[in-house]
Amino acid sequence: MLGQMQNHPLLISALITHAERHHADGEIVSRRVEGDIHRTDWATLAKRSRQVANALDADQLPAGTRVATVAWNGYRHMELYFGVSGSQRVLHTLNPRLHPQQLAWIINHAEDTVVCFDTTFTPLIAAVHSKCPTVKRWVALCDADKLPADSGIPNLVSYEGWLAAQSSNYRWPQFDENTASSLCYTSGTTGNPKGVLYSHRSTLLHAYAAALPDSLNLSARDAVLPVVPMFHVNAWGLPYAAAAVGCKLVFPGPAMDGKSIYELIEGEQVSLAAGVPTVWQMLLGHLQAGGLKFSKLNRTVIGGSACPPAMLTTFQDVYGVEVLHAWGMTEMSPLGTACTLKNKQLALDDAGRLKVRLKQGRVVYGVDMKIVDGEGKELPWDGRTYGDLLVRGPWIIDQYFRAEGDSPLVDGWFPTGDVATIDADGFMQITDRSKDVIKSGGEWISSIDVENVAMAHPAVAMAACIGMPHPKWDERPIVVVALKPGAELSRDDMLAFYEGKIAKWQIPDDVVFVQSIPLGATGKMMKVSLREQLKGYVLPGV
Amino acid sequence: MLGQMQNHPLLISALITHAERHHADGEIVSRRVEGDIHRTDWATLAKRSRQVANALDADQLPAGTRVATVAWNGYRHMELYFGVSGSQRVLHTLNPRLHPQQLAWIINHAEDTVVCFDTTFTPLIAAVHSKCPTVKRWVALCDADKLPADSGIPNLVSYEGWLAAQSSNYRWPQFDENTASSLCYTSGTTGNPKGVLYSHRSTLLHAYAAALPDSLNLSARDAVLPVVPMFHVNAWGLPYAAAAVGCKLVFPGPAMDGKSIYELIEGEQVSLAAGVPTVWQMLLGHLQAGGLKFSKLNRTVIGGSACPPAMLTTFQDVYGVEVLHAWGMTEMSPLGTACTLKNKQLALDDAGRLKVRLKQGRVVYGVDMKIVDGEGKELPWDGRTYGDLLVRGPWIIDQYFRAEGDSPLVDGWFPTGDVATIDADGFMQITDRSKDVIKSGGEWISSIDVENVAMAHPAVAMAACIGMPHPKWDERPIVVVALKPGAELSRDDMLAFYEGKIAKWQIPDDVVFVQSIPLGATGKMMKVSLREQLKGYVLPGV
Repeated sequence: MLGQMQNHPLLISALITHAERHHADGEIVSRRVEGDIHRTDWATLAKRSRQVANALDADQLPAGTRVATVAWNGYRHMELYFGVSGSQRVLHTLNPRLHPQQLAWIINHAEDTVVCFDTTFTPLIAAVHSKCPTVKRWVALCDADKLPADSGIPNLVSYEGWLAAQSSNYRWPQFDENTASSLCYTSGTTGNPKGVLYSHRSTLLHAYAAALPDSLNLSARDAVLPVVPMFHVNAWGLPYAAAAVGCKLVFPGPAMDGKSIYELIEGEQVSLAAGVPTVWQMLLGHLQAGGLKFSKLNRTVIGGSACPPAMLTTFQDVYGVEVLHAWGMTEMSPLGTACTLKNKQLALDDAGRLKVRLKQGRVVYGVDMKIVDGEGKELPWDGRTYGDLLVRGPWIIDQYFRAEGDSPLVDGWFPTGDVATIDADGFMQITDRSKDVIKSGGEWISSIDVENVAMAHPAVAMAACIGMPHPKWDERPIVVVALKPGAELSRDDMLAFYEGKIAKWQIPDDVVFVQSIPLGATGKMMKVSLREQLKGYVLPGV
Repeated sequence: MLGQMQNHPLLISALITHAERHHADGEIVSRRVEGDIHRTDWATLAKRSRQVANALDADQLPAGTRVATVAWNGYRHMELYFGVSGSQRVLHTLNPRLHPQQLAWIINHAEDTVVCFDTTFTPLIAAVHSKCPTVKRWVALCDADKLPADSGIPNLVSYEGWLAAQSSNYRWPQFDENTASSLCYTSGTTGNPKGVLYSHRSTLLHAYAAALPDSLNLSARDAVLPVVPMFHVNAWGLPYAAAAVGCKLVFPGPAMDGKSIYELIEGEQVSLAAGVPTVWQMLLGHLQAGGLKFSKLNRTVIGGSACPPAMLTTFQDVYGVEVLHAWGMTEMSPLGTACTLKNKQLALDDAGRLKVRLKQGRVVYGVDMKIVDGEGKELPWDGRTYGDLLVRGPWIIDQYFRAEGDSPLVDGWFPTGDVATIDADGFMQITDRSKDVIKSGGEWISSIDVENVAMAHPAVAMAACIGMPHPKWDERPIVVVALKPGAELSRDDMLAFYEGKIAKWQIPDDVVFVQSIPLGATGKMMKVSLREQLKGYVLPGV
């Protein structure tokens, strides 16, 4: 027997319609590629999203057409989010930090038909367009009179010219909520990038979950600054959640330096900012250098990689900004956990609370997780035992886009590739990436633990721990170290620094000094490249 | 093209599984019919819910079977919420305040197969069981040795005995999320009661929306006291939302007097309490009499009927408790709006904020609303123009259970039967019930406005305004007044009291004094009965 409630598919168009009807004058502020600050509101953004939909209709692009973006965070990108997905096409956000060859590969794999790009990226587009036969139209996100001249890009129009020809009258189509809405490729540190195809349903459920008090705690009273790029898992879903709650949105455009971000936070009275640790490092540097304070910012969401303890305490103790540690993946839309405390943890002393806050946190409602051993047996939630982390839920991937071969799932669970502990209260902590953990004599050594010790040494700029084959122990860790400019450090001093900081058997067998450690497109250390660099290396005594 | 995310139906069983896994030791505290305070936790409640499911399986009750409850708020009722719906049966919450004849009518209309009742209601069940041929099993919610003796109720078992025979191993079935989960009948002040059949999907989406910061703002840090009965639209959905966020739950059982509620709030450190104004009146009376304060309570949700201004300011100014005005209906699961302010309203002065807080508030995300005139034309959102209020959304009724005839919807919108204004920021205010509004010479007079003036008079205990036929104006208002014990008031003094408080043409044409005003099962004034009582009444001068 079915219930007798109204049947409304969960669609992205409903988000923008809601924001327009109930938060018409809610502000959307963007720093633009043009350099100025642009101001609009939800009602205008909704109107222009409908013009986007009409422009795509005018081009006779069928449902499911992939419309790509190579763009910073801004109102035009936001209009594409709603106009493209709302009209039943698929928004494909491309990462402009990728190598042009990789970008072209992804455009071809996705068969993108339209590509919209910020003029910052005109050279990039000029370099790849000839390798992208599926693209029928290139749209520069600028006024008609700012269209890049002599770029050689065919079928190029300006976004404003493209929109101006269109009416803002448009009736959003109603369709199956499981329809594809957007597409994002993983950075692919190994092998080819893989596409994750989100649905309207997964996006809407994620928006509800992300806004909850135990997740990002979003309300109409917030002014949200997503520093995390809109090409990076849809800026963690913030554009959608923001429309649902009707908050103010502030977009940084291309300017992610400390000064620019600080000016935006203060000028627009931002209450919540979201981004990766490297951005906050720049921001804190700017604050410290100028003796500045925040007047309204009260919390920051940190994800992408683990938040260093010093950053967390500086935000909290010096600037009165609550740090919310969150964790997710492209394959998870991305939100999996957020580190909001329960009363039990709030009652701990400072040191105890800090220890919890450094964990990746508890699942947001809708996600479930477990840790398993090498045989897939579920491991206890004691905060000590660690194992491979698996997740499941309605906004977690089922299969990669156009994937050949088997589903990535194991009995319905997605293996995250992370190794983690979970404590009795459900707080998860990432210990390492599965592929980076060092298996030494049947025990696991966290490469991150080994790296953190090295990075605490004043002479060390960056450190990577990798496992090397060992005839007796299977693997033993070494630490690869890049020193700060002008700093000096010996192998023995580095190893001596480990004494008493981690267990003796976890101390690396060797130190290798390098000029720099290779970083990927999202700022993560490329251990695969490092391994290649160290080909032929043999452990001491082996 | 479909997205490629995991397919997980939104099911009520997932709520209790989540609470068990991630909030195992979260407390559930109940004042029982037995008189004592009972303590359990989410893990135990989940286990016993599975025993409920096994007990229903043992009775070979097919999917869709209606299992009814006549029960107070407590942990056993909660176990039935999850055990019945989770195992694909339909939980039918019956209102014990109904007349036995009406109760039997509803049981027969729903074809309930099992009825579970608190022993408080043994006399009620003894009075109706013989009129309920569909019921195959009666379950008294008590220990085996407390089973009512000589009740004459056939096939009667104790809940604890029924459960004790069952294993707590049970695998919740997976099925279409649109499957019926629960059933609640409207009180039916006119005609027969009508059933609203909720689905798992509508319940889960409602739980997400209810917990949002702009709705009830529920987190794992809350201790929630639903004074609103679990037989009254599922206690506003709090049992489900509580499981999703894993908060502490505190149930009042049958004791709703001020002293009992206060002791529970203080003893269990309740942070949020939810109920109707009459309950809070008793609570405030107890506080005032004893010079008491709250130590932890920081907000209260008031719904069911409009919150009197004095109650709102007393809570806020005297006791530091934020009042959240909310509005909904049985047909809406029930949440439609919550009066959380935007920054703009927060910036108002005290009087300005109070004026907004007295409105029923903004839609929770998922619901949309509009006001229309007599011809169905949408009216402006200016805070002054009022019209019939219509709503739509995924947890709003499509059709009544076993209804014959047309859908209640008008172009996909559900007419609430309320008359309301909506302001430019989306704050809705109920002006009146459509059937109660007085249509005088083409203008509408709000019966509530007329009643509020009368009730502000110190001699008046209760006042009802109703429209009487008038040859020239179509209708003119009269006010029916019940005086406080021992108080005296003349017709002319009552009418004089209106001068300057409302427009001259809105002042009633007459005053009728009565001993008491008839109230329905949910405490609302029965204007239909009042009209019958006044049959033959003629307006002065007509």
